[in-house]
Amino acid sequence: MGRARSGYAGGMAVEATERPDTARRTDLELLDRWWRAANYLSVGQIYLMDNPLLREPLAPEHIKPRLLGHWGTTPGLTFVWAHLNRVIARDRQPALYVTGPGHGGPGVVATAWLEGTYSERYAHVPADAEGMRELFRQFSFPGGVPSHAAPETPGSIHEGGELGYSLAHAYGAALDNPELLVACVIGDGEAETGALAGSWQSNKFLHPVHDGTVLPILHLNGYKIANSTVSARIPQDELLDQLRGHGHRPYVLDGGFDGEDPMAVHARMADVLDEITAEIRRIRDRAAAQEAAGEDVQRPCWPVLVLRTPKGWTGPREVDGTPVEGTFRAHQVPLAEVRTNEGHRAQLEEWLRSYRPEELFDDDGRLRPELAALAPRGDDRMSATPHANGGLLLRDLRLPDFRAHAVDVPGPGAGPESATGTLGNWLADVVAANRENFRIVGPDETVSNKLQGVFTATDRQFLGERRPGDEHTAARGQVLEVLNEQLCQGLLEGYLLTGRHGLFNCYEAFIHIVDSMFNQHAKWLETSRGIPWRRPVASLNYLLTSHVWRQDHNGFSHQDPGFVDHVLNKKPEIVRAYLPPDANTLLSTVDHCLRSRDLVNVVVAGKNPGPQWLSTDEAVAHCARGIGIWDWASNDQGGEPDVVLGCAGDVPTLEAVAAVDLLRRHLPELRVRLVNVVDLMRLQDEREHPHGLPDRDFDGLFTTDKPVIFAYHGYPWLIHRLTYRRRNHVNIHVRGYKEEGTTTTPFDMVMLNDLDRYHLVMDVIDRVPGLAVRHAGLRQEMVDQRLRCRRYTREHGEDAPEVADWVWPG
Amino acid sequence: MGRARSGYAGGMAVEATERPDTARRTDLELLDRWWRAANYLSVGQIYLMDNPLLREPLAPEHIKPRLLGHWGTTPGLTFVWAHLNRVIARDRQPALYVTGPGHGGPGVVATAWLEGTYSERYAHVPADAEGMRELFRQFSFPGGVPSHAAPETPGSIHEGGELGYSLAHAYGAALDNPELLVACVIGDGEAETGALAGSWQSNKFLHPVHDGTVLPILHLNGYKIANSTVSARIPQDELLDQLRGHGHRPYVLDGGFDGEDPMAVHARMADVLDEITAEIRRIRDRAAAQEAAGEDVQRPCWPVLVLRTPKGWTGPREVDGTPVEGTFRAHQVPLAEVRTNEGHRAQLEEWLRSYRPEELFDDDGRLRPELAALAPRGDDRMSATPHANGGLLLRDLRLPDFRAHAVDVPGPGAGPESATGTLGNWLADVVAANRENFRIVGPDETVSNKLQGVFTATDRQFLGERRPGDEHTAARGQVLEVLNEQLCQGLLEGYLLTGRHGLFNCYEAFIHIVDSMFNQHAKWLETSRGIPWRRPVASLNYLLTSHVWRQDHNGFSHQDPGFVDHVLNKKPEIVRAYLPPDANTLLSTVDHCLRSRDLVNVVVAGKNPGPQWLSTDEAVAHCARGIGIWDWASNDQGGEPDVVLGCAGDVPTLEAVAAVDLLRRHLPELRVRLVNVVDLMRLQDEREHPHGLPDRDFDGLFTTDKPVIFAYHGYPWLIHRLTYRRRNHVNIHVRGYKEEGTTTTPFDMVMLNDLDRYHLVMDVIDRVPGLAVRHAGLRQEMVDQRLRCRRYTREHGEDAPEVADWVWPG
Repeated sequence: MGRARSGYAGGMAVEATERPDTARRTDLELLDRWWRAANYLSVGQIYLMDNPLLREPLAPEHIKPRLLGHWGTTPGLTFVWAHLNRVIARDRQPALYVTGPGHGGPGVVATAWLEGTYSERYAHVPADAEGMRELFRQFSFPGGVPSHAAPETPGSIHEGGELGYSLAHAYGAALDNPELLVACVIGDGEAETGALAGSWQSNKFLHPVHDGTVLPILHLNGYKIANSTVSARIPQDELLDQLRGHGHRPYVLDGGFDGEDPMAVHARMADVLDEITAEIRRIRDRAAAQEAAGEDVQRPCWPVLVLRTPKGWTGPREVDGTPVEGTFRAHQVPLAEVRTNEGHRAQLEEWLRSYRPEELFDDDGRLRPELAALAPRGDDRMSATPHANGGLLLRDLRLPDFRAHAVDVPGPGAGPESATGTLGNWLADVVAANRENFRIVGPDETVSNKLQGVFTATDRQFLGERRPGDEHTAARGQVLEVLNEQLCQGLLEGYLLTGRHGLFNCYEAFIHIVDSMFNQHAKWLETSRGIPWRRPVASLNYLLTSHVWRQDHNGFSHQDPGFVDHVLNKKPEIVRAYLPPDANTLLSTVDHCLRSRDLVNVVVAGKNPGPQWLSTDEAVAHCARGIGIWDWASNDQGGEPDVVLGCAGDVPTLEAVAAVDLLRRHLPELRVRLVNVVDLMRLQDEREHPHGLPDRDFDGLFTTDKPVIFAYHGYPWLIHRLTYRRRNHVNIHVRGYKEEGTTTTPFDMVMLNDLDRYHLVMDVIDRVPGLAVRHAGLRQEMVDQRLRCRRYTREHGEDAPEVADWVWPG
Repeated sequence: MGRARSGYAGGMAVEATERPDTARRTDLELLDRWWRAANYLSVGQIYLMDNPLLREPLAPEHIKPRLLGHWGTTPGLTFVWAHLNRVIARDRQPALYVTGPGHGGPGVVATAWLEGTYSERYAHVPADAEGMRELFRQFSFPGGVPSHAAPETPGSIHEGGELGYSLAHAYGAALDNPELLVACVIGDGEAETGALAGSWQSNKFLHPVHDGTVLPILHLNGYKIANSTVSARIPQDELLDQLRGHGHRPYVLDGGFDGEDPMAVHARMADVLDEITAEIRRIRDRAAAQEAAGEDVQRPCWPVLVLRTPKGWTGPREVDGTPVEGTFRAHQVPLAEVRTNEGHRAQLEEWLRSYRPEELFDDDGRLRPELAALAPRGDDRMSATPHANGGLLLRDLRLPDFRAHAVDVPGPGAGPESATGTLGNWLADVVAANRENFRIVGPDETVSNKLQGVFTATDRQFLGERRPGDEHTAARGQVLEVLNEQLCQGLLEGYLLTGRHGLFNCYEAFIHIVDSMFNQHAKWLETSRGIPWRRPVASLNYLLTSHVWRQDHNGFSHQDPGFVDHVLNKKPEIVRAYLPPDANTLLSTVDHCLRSRDLVNVVVAGKNPGPQWLSTDEAVAHCARGIGIWDWASNDQGGEPDVVLGCAGDVPTLEAVAAVDLLRRHLPELRVRLVNVVDLMRLQDEREHPHGLPDRDFDGLFTTDKPVIFAYHGYPWLIHRLTYRRRNHVNIHVRGYKEEGTTTTPFDMVMLNDLDRYHLVMDVIDRVPGLAVRHAGLRQEMVDQRLRCRRYTREHGEDAPEVADWVWPG
């Protein structure tokens, strides 16, 4: 296969011209030494717990007992870093480095130490021999630092532990950061993931003037853990077609194979990066000129770099007669038995000495000054960029008063109104007041989720071809829509972690597509909270709508309320779940979420017009408590009730209130209390969750011995899981979604799951002592009423008038 | 923009030559009528509940009260179906139709009815006017059929409710089905998803002789719900580059715009399909010849069809003065107010009559015989293919006796052995005995998960470039590895639903990537169980390893045991979770899972060498019970214990047994019972789950009033959720993963989460009445011991010898 050695690959191989420039040669020799220093430190981290500068021969006690780490990808990561530094220092170009293969943690820790940032963040790891010893020892060591580009790593917003999200993070970071260059190294393993494959279309959403630049660097080292990668095993033409098909102009650098001198590769890499940076400048200048001239800004063809270097480049070529460099065997720890096998140990020492540490570090173990001078200064260092510690750059949102958009609720049962529709009108104000740091993402559902109000204030940003007849679509806009939940999530994460704010709106069922991405973001936040130099970032806010109870069009496949269950497995400090029952409580909830920091807020709310229960003031008070008795729907008058009806979620609240209406009419003597829950975490123990209600308060609401019938939006077990330590838990009976559904009417859906008002009344009769015998007739009437509704619906195709037209009698 | 009208798009537009062939013209006129019939039936399903043949003027009472359905994609789906029928009938080519935009349900229901299959499956929907009335009425009607290509739809293995999985399903169906053509319609909305974007690489895994053919048909109608699609808004050259980059030869058909006569489009479509089918034949013949000649079979360049037709083609061009056909407004129900708005109703009637039903159906409402003759016969009908009802084709696996690979366990504490390593050796036999219908999928982790034993019997199948030095990689093999969990899952689903068997092995944490895909498959199984004509298929088997407790290399980002929590939200009938504690129990468990049907089995097992507890016979007996007292680790001698130690999972079992050892030594008088759980569902109530233990049996194991300390593999709440109805629930105290982790030693990990042996002993002391006071010294000793271990680990970087070298004293 013919491979281009470097340069723009316009379908043919281009040989780079090496410039006979002595100064450049010297620069590149210095660069090579800096790179060798980074590699030396990387190998040291994987293997050594002592003797960091090899001042004595390597002995077993210098070697860590457990050898953990990923060498294979590391020299490529340090190579790119060193070369980017040359450009950044020269051009004073603010840059962020996104490490797709974040498991190459030693590499990015090493560069941070070389740039001095590591010692600034961690005083116990100074920039000298003692610091180097600690740097080595702590890596993948109990009580030390993780093996990945974790939150502990300066300069990182992306751990890369779960592959696939680098490119989306990079684009998210670039949005609204016109000065920023985001260099995104994508491993060829990562390139196989669906998330990464789908992220290539991000360039259709990047504005070439008002957003920054993303430079994807597809690093083909050819192998994953134990197998070749797909991208490395297709003809180069095919790969370049793919990249062109993704709207990029590919540049190719291929080097280091068959023992090629790294100096030759450095020269080509410097050339190709010069070409690329010049091309980026031309693109941005052209776009700025277009905009200045009032022309429509077109999507440019951004460069992409394909970088082929051997896996484990500069490491052992063979171990025990088996090839390692350039194979999958270089993935983790190439020499496995260094402590016990003298031959391996000698080979490690030879490997370490091959970087010539004496040329890199002075007698104190400090990086030699001529090398230290290579890195950019201060915040220009990629390891120190404030963009990778977004909380430093975070500005509070300007939040207009949501009361201006509140629904008028003269009394309970007003409306009907759409909760998300109401929210959309307020979000338009939020968008307008925060043009530079607030984005709404979602998979083509802004209108379907009834948030179209935002389009009075902004458009969908889209750099693909726009046509007459398109609605609310422009080259600039604060809404990003792409039918790819992973990409929505990745873009928003990148945006938040670099110090901005946002909201993800999504069909409730399909948010599970990002379960695993949520995990990673939650873990990032969990860890970041314990790192003093990381500043709090804006919370990740989910608005889940088009929910389980109202999938009239789509049916069973679109019904899954379990994302909250998934979220609650993460640490209580960072997760919140809200189920506002109507429009004003939704406004108050989202207002609260947009002010919060370092959390994941899940808000579940309906889009269909429904009854409104609380005025603005009542909503604000109710949301502040998160849980409370609705006096107007209770008749226990401050005394002890016979039964408590709990409810959480808009549809369950409607059914619970309608059940109260039935109970009042049929069993006026029964003392009923209705407790509505907005903040689900209030149900949990205060020792388990910061929002947890003290036992005394919980008992005050739900009693210690009375039956509780709880109508819940999602899977019933969640309520049990949250309340199992409560004194009255044994009496809590939960109705919720039990995985019954199809394309049917709203009331038929609640009936299918026994969450309907009639069934709640039956539950009350069954659970309140004495009622079952005395009111067997009423119970039968409820059974019959359910049958009537079912029959009516099957015959007429819509809900029976007595449920469809029901209103709270007030 | 220049668009090719049809033909192979070698980078330039090619005008099709229309043949002056009268017979062909007649054929296509018939085809057009068949297509019109399908469209007529589709519109009828969305709108009508009576008057199906328009024998009287359309009146409000003929219209459904709730108009639900997706028209936009439908005419494209029926168009492709009609044209494929022509080829299938001519060539007797077995074919399966995968409907990416499965929400176009009316279209595929319509074609199944036209082919007679629908009436064969559903006697109450005969192939006449009365049947047509019922066909219309039932669609999206309460008690009727879903709006998507659901399990109820004959000919479907793919609902398409959650977009993104069509192409992976198609490839999964084609594997080991050399005769089969899988036509896969991909919507341009779906094409934006990560799952679909990553699925294009599937052709690197398809063998051109021994697997079938997949024909992707990228259907660009340009719009999603409310927005344009990305693929429709990039230059055609870019799109074709993408497809070439994916290794395809693109053909383009563009038609129906600006009122173009469908007959012209039919002619071009027939031509392009003839070209494509000829090309497929050439490819397959060439590959077969290569193989016959003993040459290495190369990856061919398979055709792909890009089909551009207007969204909502043949529907209303404008409604109330706003364009509809060819815009996003055609997505669902183009005419919204047909019942109340006379103008809309007239327009609907005009629309329906535009298909000229009188030319399509006879007076009895039957499809006219000359049209009925167009469809293929019997099983050749795509709506009737047995491949879409895989249980019909399912053969039992030949399962060799796993005892041949069982670990010799002379007594508890033998070993250490790797559980998955042992399993891999047996799987090699399974692979060898089932060459044609068993596949193992996974994201490049077969070796990392220590299943490398299978490579003694088979290779990884890979049609990319293979190179010297590659291991266990060949053009044919039963292992599919791609670093894309979604693709692994999609391929396996397609394989299982078409009547074969398989196993998905995955890192435990990252299986969450397919949470949402699992949802859809589970829902498919849940629904299928209620459909009499759907035959049971093989279960979806997950082997989750490299689990939370042993992520020594990767740390926190690789730790999440919550997939089981997610799975258990689905219906109990179809979900199972197993946590075998050692190698022989793992063998027995997987043997059981591979024999099961219509389930999702989640098996969690470690790969690292660990102690072995049960001999083969003991393992079989223990797995058959699913839960049981380990007498050898208990000293309650059939009497009532003072405390029960429960455990589930290999690491928790090790810690629980080690805790028993400590208790025996320090508190010999304490009667301890150890209960090990393999089948997690045994913990649940028998009324909740088919595997649930009757209360009496549960109480017999866990007592009704003694403290239970339960060491669990995952998040502790799950055990509470499963047991909250049990009499002794209040005394069950669970230890498990509480989201604490980093790169550290195995024992440090369990200590971080209070799951270690010392902490379990502390829990026993705290919970058993009287011990806390009498044995405060022992408790303190445990605290100190934990500190000693922690300190040792931080100093030496490995676990303290007393835990690392501990063995059960027997």
